[in-house]
Amino acid sequence: MLSIPTLAHPLLLDPLLAGWLQEDWGRGDRTSEALFDEDGPPARGNILLKEPGLVAGLPLLPRLFRLIDSQVECVSVVAEGSPCASRTVIATLYGPVRSLLMGERVALNLLQRLSGVATHTHRYVERLEGYKARLADTRKTTPGLRLLEKYAVRVGGGVNHRFGLDDAVMIKDNHLLAGGGIAATVARARARVPFPTPIEVETESLQQVEEAVACGVDIIMLDNMPPDQMEQAVRLIAGRAIVEASGNITLDTLESVASTGVDYISTSATITRATWLDISLDLQGLNQP
Amino acid sequence: MLSIPTLAHPLLLDPLLAGWLQEDWGRGDRTSEALFDEDGPPARGNILLKEPGLVAGLPLLPRLFRLIDSQVECVSVVAEGSPCASRTVIATLYGPVRSLLMGERVALNLLQRLSGVATHTHRYVERLEGYKARLADTRKTTPGLRLLEKYAVRVGGGVNHRFGLDDAVMIKDNHLLAGGGIAATVARARARVPFPTPIEVETESLQQVEEAVACGVDIIMLDNMPPDQMEQAVRLIAGRAIVEASGNITLDTLESVASTGVDYISTSATITRATWLDISLDLQGLNQP
Amino acid sequence: MLSIPTLAHPLLLDPLLAGWLQEDWGRGDRTSEALFDEDGPPARGNILLKEPGLVAGLPLLPRLFRLIDSQVECVSVVAEGSPCASRTVIATLYGPVRSLLMGERVALNLLQRLSGVATHTHRYVERLEGYKARLADTRKTTPGLRLLEKYAVRVGGGVNHRFGLDDAVMIKDNHLLAGGGIAATVARARARVPFPTPIEVETESLQQVEEAVACGVDIIMLDNMPPDQMEQAVRLIAGRAIVEASGNITLDTLESVASTGVDYISTSATITRATWLDISLDLQGLNQP
Amino acid sequence: MLSIPTLAHPLLLDPLLAGWLQEDWGRGDRTSEALFDEDGPPARGNILLKEPGLVAGLPLLPRLFRLIDSQVECVSVVAEGSPCASRTVIATLYGPVRSLLMGERVALNLLQRLSGVATHTHRYVERLEGYKARLADTRKTTPGLRLLEKYAVRVGGGVNHRFGLDDAVMIKDNHLLAGGGIAATVARARARVPFPTPIEVETESLQQVEEAVACGVDIIMLDNMPPDQMEQAVRLIAGRAIVEASGNITLDTLESVASTGVDYISTSATITRATWLDISLDLQGLNQP
Amino acid sequence: MLSIPTLAHPLLLDPLLAGWLQEDWGRGDRTSEALFDEDGPPARGNILLKEPGLVAGLPLLPRLFRLIDSQVECVSVVAEGSPCASRTVIATLYGPVRSLLMGERVALNLLQRLSGVATHTHRYVERLEGYKARLADTRKTTPGLRLLEKYAVRVGGGVNHRFGLDDAVMIKDNHLLAGGGIAATVARARARVPFPTPIEVETESLQQVEEAVACGVDIIMLDNMPPDQMEQAVRLIAGRAIVEASGNITLDTLESVASTGVDYISTSATITRATWLDISLDLQGLNQP
Amino acid sequence: MLSIPTLAHPLLLDPLLAGWLQEDWGRGDRTSEALFDEDGPPARGNILLKEPGLVAGLPLLPRLFRLIDSQVECVSVVAEGSPCASRTVIATLYGPVRSLLMGERVALNLLQRLSGVATHTHRYVERLEGYKARLADTRKTTPGLRLLEKYAVRVGGGVNHRFGLDDAVMIKDNHLLAGGGIAATVARARARVPFPTPIEVETESLQQVEEAVACGVDIIMLDNMPPDQMEQAVRLIAGRAIVEASGNITLDTLESVASTGVDYISTSATITRATWLDISLDLQGLNQP
Repeated sequence: MLSIPTLAHPLLLDPLLAGWLQEDWGRGDRTSEALFDEDGPPARGNILLKEPGLVAGLPLLPRLFRLIDSQVECVSVVAEGSPCASRTVIATLYGPVRSLLMGERVALNLLQRLSGVATHTHRYVERLEGYKARLADTRKTTPGLRLLEKYAVRVGGGVNHRFGLDDAVMIKDNHLLAGGGIAATVARARARVPFPTPIEVETESLQQVEEAVACGVDIIMLDNMPPDQMEQAVRLIAGRAIVEASGNITLDTLESVASTGVDYISTSATITRATWLDISLDLQGLNQP
Repeated sequence: MLSIPTLAHPLLLDPLLAGWLQEDWGRGDRTSEALFDEDGPPARGNILLKEPGLVAGLPLLPRLFRLIDSQVECVSVVAEGSPCASRTVIATLYGPVRSLLMGERVALNLLQRLSGVATHTHRYVERLEGYKARLADTRKTTPGLRLLEKYAVRVGGGVNHRFGLDDAVMIKDNHLLAGGGIAATVARARARVPFPTPIEVETESLQQVEEAVACGVDIIMLDNMPPDQMEQAVRLIAGRAIVEASGNITLDTLESVASTGVDYISTSATITRATWLDISLDLQGLNQP
Repeated sequence: MLSIPTLAHPLLLDPLLAGWLQEDWGRGDRTSEALFDEDGPPARGNILLKEPGLVAGLPLLPRLFRLIDSQVECVSVVAEGSPCASRTVIATLYGPVRSLLMGERVALNLLQRLSGVATHTHRYVERLEGYKARLADTRKTTPGLRLLEKYAVRVGGGVNHRFGLDDAVMIKDNHLLAGGGIAATVARARARVPFPTPIEVETESLQQVEEAVACGVDIIMLDNMPPDQMEQAVRLIAGRAIVEASGNITLDTLESVASTGVDYISTSATITRATWLDISLDLQGLNQP
Repeated sequence: MLSIPTLAHPLLLDPLLAGWLQEDWGRGDRTSEALFDEDGPPARGNILLKEPGLVAGLPLLPRLFRLIDSQVECVSVVAEGSPCASRTVIATLYGPVRSLLMGERVALNLLQRLSGVATHTHRYVERLEGYKARLADTRKTTPGLRLLEKYAVRVGGGVNHRFGLDDAVMIKDNHLLAGGGIAATVARARARVPFPTPIEVETESLQQVEEAVACGVDIIMLDNMPPDQMEQAVRLIAGRAIVEASGNITLDTLESVASTGVDYISTSATITRATWLDISLDLQGLNQP
Repeated sequence: MLSIPTLAHPLLLDPLLAGWLQEDWGRGDRTSEALFDEDGPPARGNILLKEPGLVAGLPLLPRLFRLIDSQVECVSVVAEGSPCASRTVIATLYGPVRSLLMGERVALNLLQRLSGVATHTHRYVERLEGYKARLADTRKTTPGLRLLEKYAVRVGGGVNHRFGLDDAVMIKDNHLLAGGGIAATVARARARVPFPTPIEVETESLQQVEEAVACGVDIIMLDNMPPDQMEQAVRLIAGRAIVEASGNITLDTLESVASTGVDYISTSATITRATWLDISLDLQGLNQP
Repeated sequence: MLSIPTLAHPLLLDPLLAGWLQEDWGRGDRTSEALFDEDGPPARGNILLKEPGLVAGLPLLPRLFRLIDSQVECVSVVAEGSPCASRTVIATLYGPVRSLLMGERVALNLLQRLSGVATHTHRYVERLEGYKARLADTRKTTPGLRLLEKYAVRVGGGVNHRFGLDDAVMIKDNHLLAGGGIAATVARARARVPFPTPIEVETESLQQVEEAVACGVDIIMLDNMPPDQMEQAVRLIAGRAIVEASGNITLDTLESVASTGVDYISTSATITRATWLDISLDLQGLNQP
């Protein structure tokens, strides 16, 4: 089994977290700042999962609250990525009530969204048990949240495809419009990108698959092919490239695609069709550590 | 009917758009930069809706592509917020193919997410036709996307609640932990915030409603009350405050809540339960203006 | 009496403080960096008030010096907002002499400006003793310093009006140029802003006051009305809206305005007519390690 | 006569202007955005001076409004730095009413503050007519506004001293605490700073003046000396260094200081004792170009 | 032959260019701003190469000067990457003299450094003519200048290796310290990175080469091997991975390494041993378009 | 002897360091993040100099690694600026292996570049032993690295000239194109810049030197003059201005220039002709503190 992935380094992630707090605060938390002092009183809070699912985002809590108040302590009660029943306390917070309230909404919004993605991803991953194929994501992610949504996909058992346009050359039909066919297009790209850059070609026919194999590309995507054609393509490629199936994959069609022998099945659905898990913060009264 | 709202000023929105492009580009679009020159060839692209729904986000297109290449022309084919059938071309793009490809993914991710929110919001709004109650959103929004998700709620026919913690005082049960009851808490808050700041109190019983009315608060939220209790609360308040119903509102319970006479019904579901609409960009070949 | 307000959270305030230090440093403190090492020698400094007044800004000292050197200790000798005689030591600093000198000018500039505003505000507030009316500020603040100048107004006993254009709808004569009168304008605004947003209308005649009351606006500003007309307006409004008097308020006219029964009197003079209090830093010699 | 100085390059100034607009807007101009479309209707606005004084900041208008809306035209009616009577129209604006309203407050705040500084500076400068001495400013400026307040001093006829701690070595009594006297301190500083850096020493006695001359420093500040001692100092220095008088300079003492023959008289009063000039924007109705 | 690569998109490059101008300007170009008006007079400038070499960086000129003044016209006289004799005019500038002077130093510093890198790279590339091996760079680049120094390597005929730590997995001896040998280390890495990520292993013996081949890695680096061992390694790998030679490559040893049949030879010397080409700007007098 | 200069304050330097790490990391260190946990295991690393030279940049190590991981300890083994033999361990690092690897490349790139500059500078400085003349740098520095390259010049024994265009007025032949000769140009500049700003004039003939002396400028640059003409110029100036020699200074001509009696000799060669010193990081195995 895969171990749970680590978060990005604070130099990369903290500016995002700070921006999300500022989005929520505007000029400040008018209510809490009016009612509570900066240094007290302390409160204990339980973060409560209110529907069953996989929890994702717990390591974000100490990251987020450290930006608000170094006095806040965050303790994860369950393991990141573990499937939990409804009404599970998944983490506890302890610190000045004002600081807890100032981080509450952003913390929950992140946990709810990421747990939703991990939970939905896991539904797909479960179906692939026993197959070679691994479930991959796409670049269809919420603008600004790619780092974390792709993290949630991994928590749910999936693997990541490209994080951005610089992670690999990906030649789609639009790129072939430039003329010259797959061979010329791949050659031109290869000559101009950093040499370790992997090259993937999207194919829609066996002929294109053959052309792509002939070019020695690293990854061949079979786009929207019926399963039997996919199977032919996998045989044709014969291990000379990584094979990725893509295009309108659903929970129902997943196994038939997996059985064709492809290496990866990519879908945006784990992110675009995920809804939020219901999670809330219950404060346990003040001054009662 | 409400006219469609305008987007935020470029000084506020452009840094977000630029950040989302940078998230997608990393060090650049290795593929398009290798295959196409900066200034050509031009291509025409159709943005195609692939499932029925309300379209939201079209005014973002010229905003986004202006950051990429001032030569790109964006034309909306349908009106923002209009319900469209599947296979509708909702906008067209024309410009250097490389620029279109560099903006494609971010543009579609925004359109798909926002149209999903607008479409889901509209389902709720339709149910409220004929009632006084208006549908409102919450602060449960995707971190970084609050400005646009709340915009999409308006496109779908809803109205916005607070954009952030500074838009109103909102006194919840956690704030009452500070002691002194509603009256003392409201008084303390009122004395410390800018004087026009509206004050809202979350109530869970008729007694709390009475206390809130007595304090002269601006908005009273009825939290998770059964419809008959809500109705009593509305009669008790008698126009002396705006009344907001909240808590586990579903499409099925919406009308029973509306019939109690509340002014606003707030729910996070229009955002947290919305999935993305399927939208794609089809390039129409090069050099054919 | 109001307790002294807290400063903005470091996530909001520190970028301003850092920017002000960079403005003063440019490429560095050529003198102190040439003469003293980073870690010593330590010095003690007294911050000395050199003319009588209300002191504002003391809580900024530890905030500012923490950005320069975590070794510097700042101790307030008098309470924020307390009226002090000339030659009062209001705070002491202790730490590496180089760090004290690098923060001296920005620290003093802030203390001098904010104490000047608090002192001038207090002159107005004193005149209102015994009246219901509270003194409010405006958006006429030094660009970049609004957060702190409005804080100083509160230290001086005033209350804050809008911090920015998003804190309330404010309909002035210029907005009425759009046509349709107060009723249509208010209706259009109300339909398009977040629903808790307070709505204020500026009125110049009793007829406008009546129109505003009829629209149910939250705040009615009486702009430049003579006291007897104000009194009529207050009677006409009869508690159905908050009443704010504005326009060329001076220390001399303040009480006649207050005696009309308005809720708030707003003036920019507490900021635009405030001069700086004279405050200096006296280093007490080095501890000569 | 000095020609009027130019503003800082947009790369340096625009980030400040944008930050000031964002401070005023927060999440947007709720009122104008609700009432007016982005592109219309157009309005004409007169910027009206309402008390006599020197106008400063007019070249900021096109800089500021270009950040808001490239359609806005700004025309200066009077020359920057010219003394104007009350009720003078000093500039006109023409463009979409929404854009004018979104920039109004920041534009006026800048004009009012800068004109206040220029006007107050001019009072000092007039007294120096016929003397060699030039009036200089200090680093006592409003945090964040140094660039523009020092600009306003020049508009008022003064000259600028250091913009920041890197513009010159300035050895004050605190620096002498390091031990070794003026000679050793100057030598140590000179050896460690970029070689063109000018060196100024603050002196409080004729003996210190002699020491400073002996070190070959560039500028000698006579701090709080009585006029006859200043005169002796000027004779002693005999052109071997620039001579600056400083310390509690007032309009009344200015000429007696100038008559000692010093080259510069520096005072913070032109900035710290300046109040704002009263200036407003009058919109002239819509659709009437 | 390779066509010359394009520069990064302005969204990625302009912030760097602006930062470099600000580094050079500080608070402004005191001299030019004092002597010349913003809009004139215009001057013509020749950018003159003063020693023979390959010119790199010409496309940066319009990018840089557009940030300073949109009136400046930049015309390249020679092609990017072309070898030029001493005293060649490589580009001309035309525009307000003040704007030319404000950009002169940064423009020349960039051209001189990049041309130095391209020229030095070309010396290596020439030696590889007739061999399969291509010359690659490393991550030993001047901090902040990687984008452009790697661009200059391409202009000089080289190819780029990784732009950063995210472009490929690179397993070096330090990573093997974690234990488990090459196979376990590669497996662990592969399971945790985005699936298209290429994997490179650094090897110091034929045994390590065999292990790496067995793992199916994408690239095998032969680190500091003698040529005959390299040749054995190439035969052993037999096309199953890209082969990169590295470690103390000099102009003298280059051909012996190339003759071993490796695919890429990587060296930091093209950047770390490159000195600047001598290039200057000659202004041709004012007012003479 | 000069003591070693201190680095810039973290408020000025840390944003540069953070930017350089981000340049190297992109989306993260795929390899180390996949193989090692954030908190371990710890490793010890020796930073090894591999060719003789002056070491510069050691104080940057704790600054840089503090941004990565506060657990990393950096110890300098040799003194900053000390000449070291090949194979000298110049510093040691101890901390989590992942953190060491994430900072390795940026740390070494800085040390290698700065030590190269210090070493090359020292070659020039040694030649000036016994002469009054000091070696100065220019503004020909790598964009983005000026602060540190000029620091390295000081470590190597040189002194700094202007850090930017705001540090002094420098009137070159291009500025004289404005007409009016040296006297008018100097007068115009002096009237418009902060009064302490030093004024330097570049001269190419004895007549220009005379004009410059007559204007009372602070520094006179003798540009590309033959040694005997320089000697005449020095005599002519007779201590009334600082004298700087410049223009095509080489190691071979340095002493003949110094013997003319000039105060400073400025050259860009210490930076533009410096190559990197070879320095590497050797990890000493894990878990062995």
